[in-house]
Amino acid sequence: MNARHEVVIRGVGTSDYGRFPERRVESLAWDAILEAMQDAGAETGEIEAVFVGSVFGPPGIATRTLRGIGIGGVPVLTIEAACASGTAAYHEAVEAVALGRYSCVLVFGIEHLSSLFTSGAIVPEASDCEGRAGLPLPGLYALQAQRYIEQYNATAEQIADVAVKNKANGLRNPRAQLRASAPTLEQVMSSRKIADPLTFLQCCPVSDGAGAAIVGRPKGRRGEVRVLASALASGGLWDHRSTDFWGEAPVRRAADAAYAQSGVRPSEVDVLEVHDSFTIGEILTLESLRLCQPGEGAQLAPSGHTRMGGAQPVNPSGGLLSRGHPLGATGTAQIAEIVWQLRGTAGDRQVPDARIGMVETMGGGAAGMEGNASVVSLLALHG
Amino acid sequence: MNARHEVVIRGVGTSDYGRFPERRVESLAWDAILEAMQDAGAETGEIEAVFVGSVFGPPGIATRTLRGIGIGGVPVLTIEAACASGTAAYHEAVEAVALGRYSCVLVFGIEHLSSLFTSGAIVPEASDCEGRAGLPLPGLYALQAQRYIEQYNATAEQIADVAVKNKANGLRNPRAQLRASAPTLEQVMSSRKIADPLTFLQCCPVSDGAGAAIVGRPKGRRGEVRVLASALASGGLWDHRSTDFWGEAPVRRAADAAYAQSGVRPSEVDVLEVHDSFTIGEILTLESLRLCQPGEGAQLAPSGHTRMGGAQPVNPSGGLLSRGHPLGATGTAQIAEIVWQLRGTAGDRQVPDARIGMVETMGGGAAGMEGNASVVSLLALHG
Repeated sequence: MNARHEVVIRGVGTSDYGRFPERRVESLAWDAILEAMQDAGAETGEIEAVFVGSVFGPPGIATRTLRGIGIGGVPVLTIEAACASGTAAYHEAVEAVALGRYSCVLVFGIEHLSSLFTSGAIVPEASDCEGRAGLPLPGLYALQAQRYIEQYNATAEQIADVAVKNKANGLRNPRAQLRASAPTLEQVMSSRKIADPLTFLQCCPVSDGAGAAIVGRPKGRRGEVRVLASALASGGLWDHRSTDFWGEAPVRRAADAAYAQSGVRPSEVDVLEVHDSFTIGEILTLESLRLCQPGEGAQLAPSGHTRMGGAQPVNPSGGLLSRGHPLGATGTAQIAEIVWQLRGTAGDRQVPDARIGMVETMGGGAAGMEGNASVVSLLALHG
Repeated sequence: MNARHEVVIRGVGTSDYGRFPERRVESLAWDAILEAMQDAGAETGEIEAVFVGSVFGPPGIATRTLRGIGIGGVPVLTIEAACASGTAAYHEAVEAVALGRYSCVLVFGIEHLSSLFTSGAIVPEASDCEGRAGLPLPGLYALQAQRYIEQYNATAEQIADVAVKNKANGLRNPRAQLRASAPTLEQVMSSRKIADPLTFLQCCPVSDGAGAAIVGRPKGRRGEVRVLASALASGGLWDHRSTDFWGEAPVRRAADAAYAQSGVRPSEVDVLEVHDSFTIGEILTLESLRLCQPGEGAQLAPSGHTRMGGAQPVNPSGGLLSRGHPLGATGTAQIAEIVWQLRGTAGDRQVPDARIGMVETMGGGAAGMEGNASVVSLLALHG
């Protein structure tokens, strides 16, 4: 086993998130990349490789984007791992630096969903048997929610409260897509049904956006954030005897690997950005991340534990429900948020004394599998 | 600098190549993967990670494909690097094994172009300024050919002869897309003009197909092929003062890196599979690979040097011009062909005493760049 090099995030950046029919995805990426490079104090010539996360590309978008800001001649690899594409690209960059392939890598994630999906407020499922069976992602998550309520004697209100929490957080994020107002629990519950019990306000919107990070060896510069762990797990074949909820297994495997790599315990995590494409997703994710026992996840928002001011605030950015979910860009936006939180520069939405942060992204949509891919990373301020 | 582990290709496989409107891309992938696993003597449980090359996906296709053959729970990363996607995935697998991340990796490349492009026999350019300027890939390559003829006093017939050679080779490849008959030089020259001087028979067809390889640490099994070198180079920003032909620079950078890694000299390569999406592409590629001096490439087919029986046969499989060019699958098909050649199992199209083989793939289509990405790998029979 070769020694691993220490890896840090030197800088991060994002675009605004929203629907930008008048903008090309390249220009969103430029906002994110240039902010990340300036934040890192990195020069173009330092970039030794580029890892890009995107689900719908289009093909060749990575080099077209880079040409516009004068980056060329270094290896460029675009990675697709469903909704976890951005963090998968980040994970590959972390591994590359840790293993000595490169000492400075640009990661960016991009998606321009509004030009692909022009109706509805939910992300459609790619063509496969889920779709044909009436089980696109909202349906799949709705079934999780129904089973959760039944199995644990939880309430639809507890689940909906995740949206109340995250949309309140999003009000304080100037780059979030949905920040006009924060709905009450009653408003969340009474918004139109998408897939029972999930209502419209419990589903993430269709979004455009980009995020970026400079990942590399430490330079001793202020604001560098250490990568304590990064783990990627893909879904296994679905075992019909399993008692797992769909999507739990890859998150749990990635989380357990990240805890093992870092020696961090779940209770030591101060702030988290996790994959709340639907309210129930956050609840099951927090159980898979072992922040609580199975069946207790629905109490974490209502009890205040995961709210701002609670012991472990989750999705201070507003999460996918409020910031938006431009697939390949989501992971990079989560990373940026956690970096800002750990530096104490998150402004109105700062979690006090955040020392250890976690990013979790879940790529779903794999029929007959436990899920597509999950990436979990643990971060801490350097020095 | 950490020590690098030795890397071998344990087994390879491909589907047939052609237009298969009745088949899903998964089923083409299964043909390739199952053949590669059997060839390697690999069990499903040995596969520690999967790297997939594809340009047009669709998203999620990797896990959907793997589910069908019972592979799940290992990291799966899908990589897009234009026409070099398959070899980019292979390159990432080689690096992962060399650096100790994994000891056994499945690589596969897939594309089902016929369901995407239903007219014409040439691969359309993605939307960008090349396309709007009337410079899709055939036009770009035609301009190369025109400049080449002018600059080196070459003839259109010399360029067209690459198609005569490769289509004759393809007749002996039972998996090639175009194997009904081999055209004469006159037939190639008189087929309809696509972009002057390139005629229809000098352009690769629209293809569906898949290829696969098992890449890992050596097991000492017969038929293992050593990876002497693998290098990936992406295109730099186009410098208008450059005297290069478009597309040369990334190939030359990747080739020079591969020669340096392996200590192999260009004259020592016994058999090559290179990116002949258009006839002129093979000529410029061989110059960039330093098989000859600039301006001499057009003579290599007419002189017999690159024909079967010549000193350095190029594209014994028939190349992209004959086997077909299902983008993400092309690199994996080239790797399979070179593995068969080095093992001496290439049947009617065997190059005698092939000891060192080379694979080169070029991903083009990056406006304002020298090209998108190129991968060059040098291989030799183990032991």
